[in-house]
Amino acid sequence: MKQNYLNNTPIEEALNIYLGAVKDAVGERKTETVKTCEAFGRVLAKAVYAVICSPHYNASAMDGIAVKSADTVSAAENEPLFLPDGSFQVVDTGDAIPDEYDAVIMVEDITEKDGGVLIYSSAHPWQNIRQIGEDICMGDMLAPSLTVLTPQLCGSFLAGGVTEVECIGKPLFGIIPTGDEIVSPTSNPKKGEIIEFNSVIFSGMLKEIGTESKIYEIVPDKKELLTAVIRQAAEECDAVLVLAGSSAGRDDYTSEIIDSLGRVLVHGIAAKPGKPAVLGLIGKTPVVGLPGYPVSGIVVMNEIVKPVADFLSGKETPEKAFITATAARSIVSSLKYKEFVRVTVGKRENGFFAQPLPRAAGVITSFTKADGILEVPQNTEGYEIGEQVRVRLLRPVEEIDNSLIVAGSHDPLIDEIADLLKRSEAPYRLCSSHVGSMGAVTAVRTHTAHLGGIHLLDTESGKYNESYIKRYFPNGGARLVKGVGRIQGLMVKKGNPCNIYTFPDIVSCRYVNRQKGSGTRILCDFLTQKYGLDESKIKGYYTEECTHTAVAAQIANGNADCGLGIYSAAKMYDLDFIEICVEEYDFLIDEKAYDSDSVQAFLKALGSEAFKKRLSEMGGYRL
Amino acid sequence: MKQNYLNNTPIEEALNIYLGAVKDAVGERKTETVKTCEAFGRVLAKAVYAVICSPHYNASAMDGIAVKSADTVSAAENEPLFLPDGSFQVVDTGDAIPDEYDAVIMVEDITEKDGGVLIYSSAHPWQNIRQIGEDICMGDMLAPSLTVLTPQLCGSFLAGGVTEVECIGKPLFGIIPTGDEIVSPTSNPKKGEIIEFNSVIFSGMLKEIGTESKIYEIVPDKKELLTAVIRQAAEECDAVLVLAGSSAGRDDYTSEIIDSLGRVLVHGIAAKPGKPAVLGLIGKTPVVGLPGYPVSGIVVMNEIVKPVADFLSGKETPEKAFITATAARSIVSSLKYKEFVRVTVGKRENGFFAQPLPRAAGVITSFTKADGILEVPQNTEGYEIGEQVRVRLLRPVEEIDNSLIVAGSHDPLIDEIADLLKRSEAPYRLCSSHVGSMGAVTAVRTHTAHLGGIHLLDTESGKYNESYIKRYFPNGGARLVKGVGRIQGLMVKKGNPCNIYTFPDIVSCRYVNRQKGSGTRILCDFLTQKYGLDESKIKGYYTEECTHTAVAAQIANGNADCGLGIYSAAKMYDLDFIEICVEEYDFLIDEKAYDSDSVQAFLKALGSEAFKKRLSEMGGYRL
Repeated sequence: MKQNYLNNTPIEEALNIYLGAVKDAVGERKTETVKTCEAFGRVLAKAVYAVICSPHYNASAMDGIAVKSADTVSAAENEPLFLPDGSFQVVDTGDAIPDEYDAVIMVEDITEKDGGVLIYSSAHPWQNIRQIGEDICMGDMLAPSLTVLTPQLCGSFLAGGVTEVECIGKPLFGIIPTGDEIVSPTSNPKKGEIIEFNSVIFSGMLKEIGTESKIYEIVPDKKELLTAVIRQAAEECDAVLVLAGSSAGRDDYTSEIIDSLGRVLVHGIAAKPGKPAVLGLIGKTPVVGLPGYPVSGIVVMNEIVKPVADFLSGKETPEKAFITATAARSIVSSLKYKEFVRVTVGKRENGFFAQPLPRAAGVITSFTKADGILEVPQNTEGYEIGEQVRVRLLRPVEEIDNSLIVAGSHDPLIDEIADLLKRSEAPYRLCSSHVGSMGAVTAVRTHTAHLGGIHLLDTESGKYNESYIKRYFPNGGARLVKGVGRIQGLMVKKGNPCNIYTFPDIVSCRYVNRQKGSGTRILCDFLTQKYGLDESKIKGYYTEECTHTAVAAQIANGNADCGLGIYSAAKMYDLDFIEICVEEYDFLIDEKAYDSDSVQAFLKALGSEAFKKRLSEMGGYRL
Repeated sequence: MKQNYLNNTPIEEALNIYLGAVKDAVGERKTETVKTCEAFGRVLAKAVYAVICSPHYNASAMDGIAVKSADTVSAAENEPLFLPDGSFQVVDTGDAIPDEYDAVIMVEDITEKDGGVLIYSSAHPWQNIRQIGEDICMGDMLAPSLTVLTPQLCGSFLAGGVTEVECIGKPLFGIIPTGDEIVSPTSNPKKGEIIEFNSVIFSGMLKEIGTESKIYEIVPDKKELLTAVIRQAAEECDAVLVLAGSSAGRDDYTSEIIDSLGRVLVHGIAAKPGKPAVLGLIGKTPVVGLPGYPVSGIVVMNEIVKPVADFLSGKETPEKAFITATAARSIVSSLKYKEFVRVTVGKRENGFFAQPLPRAAGVITSFTKADGILEVPQNTEGYEIGEQVRVRLLRPVEEIDNSLIVAGSHDPLIDEIADLLKRSEAPYRLCSSHVGSMGAVTAVRTHTAHLGGIHLLDTESGKYNESYIKRYFPNGGARLVKGVGRIQGLMVKKGNPCNIYTFPDIVSCRYVNRQKGSGTRILCDFLTQKYGLDESKIKGYYTEECTHTAVAAQIANGNADCGLGIYSAAKMYDLDFIEICVEEYDFLIDEKAYDSDSVQAFLKALGSEAFKKRLSEMGGYRL
């Protein structure tokens, strides 16, 4: 077992050191001549000047007749002037004005008469004529160096007679996935095989900023082989990303190889996630070793690689734009690192709310669900609930404004409603978090969600939900909307090998529980008590998962034998299902939000035939 | 001469009518199966569900050793526990945990000892293990229908075993340029030839929203030919844009042809620019006749065509985002139309300022220079100077924040400084408008510009600039920074055919003047008075141009014989130049802005060797 230690360079310092070294090494950027009509999105290597005027001749601005203005002086509304054929010329918009004429009268302002036309007012010189250079004069600078070309700029260059432009050469990034255990995308990976998808994420992220990339074949953890591929890529490409192997483990060769072929400037940055990054140069070519965990890799891409790509492309890296939000939960962070916490952001009457997502570096969905990144500076312990925080949005703010925030008990039907809402005429984005039924009560009380699903059993009355509303909203403020009847039961392995038939049978096997505050956990605690079971004797009672499907997955894969959950999850994982009860899964809606368009759209989808059809396909519900 | 009238449908109504008809005609959108690794930017036709869990096996989250947690209970910092070889297994991050183990101890937390390892604390069950489904559970919805795919989403699909996705088919737009006078881009157009660049602008605008297009060859104004091409394009493409010919002039066939092959829904919209648009359908294919003027066409593209393209692509059209700005000039608008006024936007201490750009429909540079669009609603007369207006930005607000606003006398050297600023280490965007020297005084007094170039002759003392500062800034508020000595003179045709040698000679020819308030105009008025000339006798005295190059262009092209201007403009147009005087072209800087980084960067560029080199290449300056 090899054991090395990484440095912990503050991330801003790491970027400065690296970008400085890259600029020195690269020197003048390559340029190339590009046809103007294909130059959209390219970056100008030097200023562009018009080579002709636009218009390049005196042009009629209207459909009408070209006249000599001096001929028309006597024309008046009540005394029309007759212009005989030959004393004027019919012109269309854009036609050249013959030298002898100096004004145009619009077709709407004349009437035809035998052998000529009548006009009703005099024309002043240059009237309705676009004079030479009205838009662009030869020699005018049309755009300065390093301008990113818009379609309109390309159009103006062509108007100014510029058919080719000198642009910064497009950098090509080489992406090298590495690792013995890494396999190409598949729906049937073997145990221990890791699906290689980081290259797709990183090449897409480069494409988002207009940079092309080339993905190399997966290289196994063999030092000589990896050295050869990195050397080749550094020659073929303008920059290289080596995926995984950037840490200090047994098979982490990236740093060593870059050091042998060139030089390592930084190894280890004070970022969480993102620490084990290698920033190096081989000759003029920047070579970055990215951490294997996708979330860590994305952070290093955003913070380090994108600025490098922008520099190579001649583009300015856009400044990060932040909004201010209220922390909907407390966020504890390490003093050692700058932490990049993925958050969902919701907007309610009282402003934006940021809700942290799971923080493990392997959780790619924390990035797909994220609306923003909360950056917790190094040497900061984090934020308290209710504190004002700065969040960098990952979506347009309009999209956040239009989101329906659902926080509560997990049920796949929420996702189905999300899908129906996206497909509707006035689409809303449903942003959901699984915080359990009691989490829904809190979220609606604090107005951080519009609504949430609940199935809260009153263990005294045996009834659902109503008594909780009375207790937690004694003065109103929330409405309860009936949802669905939902069958809860015990999920067990196919064939029921542990012979579980009633709830008390769970003592004889490995159980997997739901998190505290979830309706299913309340049901479980209630049943445990009802049957007089000793929870400390139930194996796995303290192992908690946050969704029905996560519980089903643990059972299907043998980590546990049994767990409480809903029928649709059991069906999905091909598990047997022992029905325990039918519970009322309802929606708790913030009174303040009830009449809003988004909540009404939600209720409409809930009542729709399309939704009923989906429920019956999923199974396990009673309407 | 044919003469038809267009309707004047309010633009929002036109869009509603048209989009409704398109939706009805198109029905269900085409879909296609796309490889997930190539699906970045595509739009999901239906929701995507995970087909495997991620991780799909219990995986080590760290480099270290896999152990049975029950074996480790007695380990403590002061009483390390020895684990013999065979009782644990070395694992790297991502390795599968063998079934017999249930925890991982990090490599940093162990020490090797003969025949085994020492550990210093107990391991709890599932410690440092990524359990099956930690990130994604099989069956979880990963994204709802109509989601635009980000790189991160594509990565999460691959993690969930989804290697192909059902996407909305990409619509293809056909673009047909028309017109007898239209020619392909060239730097040598003949008189009367119009360079075709609208297709480049419009295809680029479609590409900006992710829509592909195909540009057809230019079709002359022949009805049968145009009918055949439109019919063919309507079959080959998902939508068609016919460029020009959309009005009601002699050769405007678009409306007639669409009507004969399908139906016209709207002809003529109450937009300025943009009125002569045709919105039609041929079968299921939307066919739009766009006005020939680029600026009109761009407005119709933004307001009508982009929403249609978004609908066909399955995307939501982003809501327009507005900022509030102060009108820096009054803006008069017609009651008949909704007007789209291109404006530059500057930011000063007291907020945003909007300055209208030239409004002629043929002026493409009004779009390339624009920072935003000020929409003046129909039935509104416009805005007074100082009024608060809503502007839709065309650039990121950070770019506006970072702009240096220069308003004053025109000189090409300003553009050269703009270029140097873009190339500098800390680039600023220089946003300049040609408002003349007196315009600079006003702009600095009202804090709507950071600075401006001035060359104001005190006709009593014969000196430049100083006395104006005293008069207009009696209590300070502005600084004067010395600029350059600049040679003013009379520009005349090569060979001086009108025999102009001194200023009074201008009476014998056609003169072209500069606008009132410009320093050059003040000089001209001064010289006219000095030599006792009668301005009403000077032909063209009231013909005004706004820049030196525009004056030179009029002379070079024979619209005038002579005009006052600077040497570099004469040189550019190969004109002869009769020196009149050397004037002091200085910079008037708002005191409040003097110490700002952007103004300091400007002054640094002004004093640089690179700038001196450019000036000497241009000629006509004294340093």
